[in-house]
Amino acid sequence: MSREEIIQQMKEDVCAANLKLPEYGLVTLTWGNVAEVNRELGVIVIKPSGVPYETMKPEDMVVTDLDGNVLEEDSLRPSSDLPTDVVLFREFPEITGITHTHSIQGAAWAQAGRDVPVYGTTHADNFYGPIPCTRDLTKEEVEEAYEENTGHVIVETFKERDIDPMAVPGVLVRNHGTFSWGNSAMKSVEVGKVIETVCEMAERTETLSRNAQEPIPQYYLDKHYYRKHGKNAYYGQG
Amino acid sequence: MSREEIIQQMKEDVCAANLKLPEYGLVTLTWGNVAEVNRELGVIVIKPSGVPYETMKPEDMVVTDLDGNVLEEDSLRPSSDLPTDVVLFREFPEITGITHTHSIQGAAWAQAGRDVPVYGTTHADNFYGPIPCTRDLTKEEVEEAYEENTGHVIVETFKERDIDPMAVPGVLVRNHGTFSWGNSAMKSVEVGKVIETVCEMAERTETLSRNAQEPIPQYYLDKHYYRKHGKNAYYGQG
Amino acid sequence: MSREEIIQQMKEDVCAANLKLPEYGLVTLTWGNVAEVNRELGVIVIKPSGVPYETMKPEDMVVTDLDGNVLEEDSLRPSSDLPTDVVLFREFPEITGITHTHSIQGAAWAQAGRDVPVYGTTHADNFYGPIPCTRDLTKEEVEEAYEENTGHVIVETFKERDIDPMAVPGVLVRNHGTFSWGNSAMKSVEVGKVIETVCEMAERTETLSRNAQEPIPQYYLDKHYYRKHGKNAYYGQG
Amino acid sequence: MSREEIIQQMKEDVCAANLKLPEYGLVTLTWGNVAEVNRELGVIVIKPSGVPYETMKPEDMVVTDLDGNVLEEDSLRPSSDLPTDVVLFREFPEITGITHTHSIQGAAWAQAGRDVPVYGTTHADNFYGPIPCTRDLTKEEVEEAYEENTGHVIVETFKERDIDPMAVPGVLVRNHGTFSWGNSAMKSVEVGKVIETVCEMAERTETLSRNAQEPIPQYYLDKHYYRKHGKNAYYGQG
Repeated sequence: MSREEIIQQMKEDVCAANLKLPEYGLVTLTWGNVAEVNRELGVIVIKPSGVPYETMKPEDMVVTDLDGNVLEEDSLRPSSDLPTDVVLFREFPEITGITHTHSIQGAAWAQAGRDVPVYGTTHADNFYGPIPCTRDLTKEEVEEAYEENTGHVIVETFKERDIDPMAVPGVLVRNHGTFSWGNSAMKSVEVGKVIETVCEMAERTETLSRNAQEPIPQYYLDKHYYRKHGKNAYYGQG
Repeated sequence: MSREEIIQQMKEDVCAANLKLPEYGLVTLTWGNVAEVNRELGVIVIKPSGVPYETMKPEDMVVTDLDGNVLEEDSLRPSSDLPTDVVLFREFPEITGITHTHSIQGAAWAQAGRDVPVYGTTHADNFYGPIPCTRDLTKEEVEEAYEENTGHVIVETFKERDIDPMAVPGVLVRNHGTFSWGNSAMKSVEVGKVIETVCEMAERTETLSRNAQEPIPQYYLDKHYYRKHGKNAYYGQG
Repeated sequence: MSREEIIQQMKEDVCAANLKLPEYGLVTLTWGNVAEVNRELGVIVIKPSGVPYETMKPEDMVVTDLDGNVLEEDSLRPSSDLPTDVVLFREFPEITGITHTHSIQGAAWAQAGRDVPVYGTTHADNFYGPIPCTRDLTKEEVEEAYEENTGHVIVETFKERDIDPMAVPGVLVRNHGTFSWGNSAMKSVEVGKVIETVCEMAERTETLSRNAQEPIPQYYLDKHYYRKHGKNAYYGQG
Repeated sequence: MSREEIIQQMKEDVCAANLKLPEYGLVTLTWGNVAEVNRELGVIVIKPSGVPYETMKPEDMVVTDLDGNVLEEDSLRPSSDLPTDVVLFREFPEITGITHTHSIQGAAWAQAGRDVPVYGTTHADNFYGPIPCTRDLTKEEVEEAYEENTGHVIVETFKERDIDPMAVPGVLVRNHGTFSWGNSAMKSVEVGKVIETVCEMAERTETLSRNAQEPIPQYYLDKHYYRKHGKNAYYGQG
């Protein structure tokens, strides 16, 4: 495919992934966005800022270089969260798609400032450990290059806690919302849906337990994660 | 456009905004209503009282003067909340559309008599401070001109607490429900949807924290609010 | 209209009212039912027992006399709750339609064995006082004529507590679910939807308050109830 | 019908039952599966692993023998939970359909490790006693033949606690999710929906009671269960 054809395909994929956000109940109004990178071509395709999902079309998607500079004339403005994605695409070289949401369950955990503990196999099927919550950004980090620093605090969280972003493909940004990722735009939206589901299950688990809840045993986590991931996985059509 | 054409357009806009209420899950049965004002023309257009959303048409909308007197013959009766809107349109001269709902999350906070604290950036993107809850009306205020006094207690809340109604475009009326506003009928409905979302996030945040929860730092609030509002805003298509 | 035409109309109205139950989210699977009475004709029309809503037609509705005896040959079996409705139609002569549900919020309050307190104006718009919860039936009442005794315990609740069934058009049956009523089959379903909404608001109000919650002042209750009900009502199209 | 025609019918029934999972709100993404057995023919038909519900067709269903060996060439892979179903179909000879979900309310109770108490008649209409929660599998059980051992721990739960799987047609697997069953694939999905509803009612009942909640009296349980089940049942069309 030519460069133009690849970019056209990316626009269609990124638009379709963005349209999954309201279908999955992950967004309110125009909130949330999905982006995809092609590192060989040196392009990122991302949802435009503040455009309603009802009328969104592939040609509305915004094409930028890997630093987030808009490449096409007459482009709409990219999502204001683009600088976060630029950092994540650079620092996490294995990821291809990123989704950002203010989904209700995820935002509530982010606002509570808590990691989501591994309370069951639904979590373990998808994340090899707790879904981490970042620290708050400092006043200086917020006032200067806020969105870029949001990317840095995510990367810091994974580096300092030695978490593999492919094994834990999402994060809660303290007081803010969720970022999730995967090997395509659509996959990152699916992980966003998983986070929402796991967050709701975890809140209800705690309500039912009325006590600090022990996470499931490690061997459960190993089994469930590795039956879906890695070379010995046996879930799905192979 | 002629006066007739403008009023016809207002009827269509107000009807479309009212129909968003069930679509956004903000109303039960016939509850809730949206109104819009045109101060130069001296008219308010508002939903009729007790009419089902399923069959509502632009021509059902009720046209009144700025004191709430019905202007058209054979008009349906206006929403019983019209006197509240009359006060708000008079006292808050920058607002053009008003939405009133008994949406579940908003009503629960109103019934609990609590301001909604700023627990996260979703709130900060839309409200520059807590969503205030009014005091209860007195027995006398309820028995005489109840709906008008509902308007007065909203205005009192903003004046006494020195809140700018354009920076905090909504309120919880104690024991009752939500009023929200903006520069159009549709915008006021969108703010109503935001209130519902923020209220649910805040309840869940408290459940997860099981403790008094600190609001986010002020610098977060400044950043998130001003990246979407005011002359330095950079969210949306400008 | 002839007797046949009236009964045909009742079947259509009762079928349409039953189909509102899944639309309003009040039922799971085939649970729930709606009935309507015509006392001059001496007939009750009720949903058949255990029939899926997807395929329900007016001709499936079951016609009985005022004692619940099926009148038409080749009739389906009536809802097993019919004997409850027979008691209520006899003892509450002003009501014409009855809805029974196991709707989730209402059932939770019934299972908790609690009256729903008047926490706000949404409640006051529709019920002039708490939604009462009956006592448990005794072992004897359950084992003999269970459904009929369910009717008796509802009537007892209203008589002993001196509640007007037209001012409080619904009840929670302890450990069981909701019954609601009104001047038509459809109206009784709408009251069922109101109960579900009010129950959810009340649970969330208590969660937010984390304390015993005072009901709203009496003058609020008077104002909201009487602006929608009685000779001085001014809500709706008159 | 020929063997081929029976298997074709089973594929259609199992596919239709699987498609009810998203319709009933019991699954996220591709999670969950339904299987049906025909013991005379010696075949199990089950959903393929990891296939989206949007595009699922009867011919995608996987046919195996009673030990779970795939019988058709070019078959998709069966759901990874098939070994659990093999054990249940062998050990519970009266059941014909099995549904497995990670539905949110059911998973929360499973993660909390709690039996669902009989708090009301909705539960009693469908289960003659608490919905049991299994013990955790041991490390050894998880690491060797995990899915088969999931079946064994379910069977152990019913045998040790002397529960009749036809009177209590479902279970929570500790930290995991729900299994439900019945005399057809579709019936097992309906029981899955009942579990979700009953779990939500029970959580809300406890929230409202804020205390340990007593289950309903035994005579209620007897009445409600036996008016829908057994030779004296009088609910439904007989």
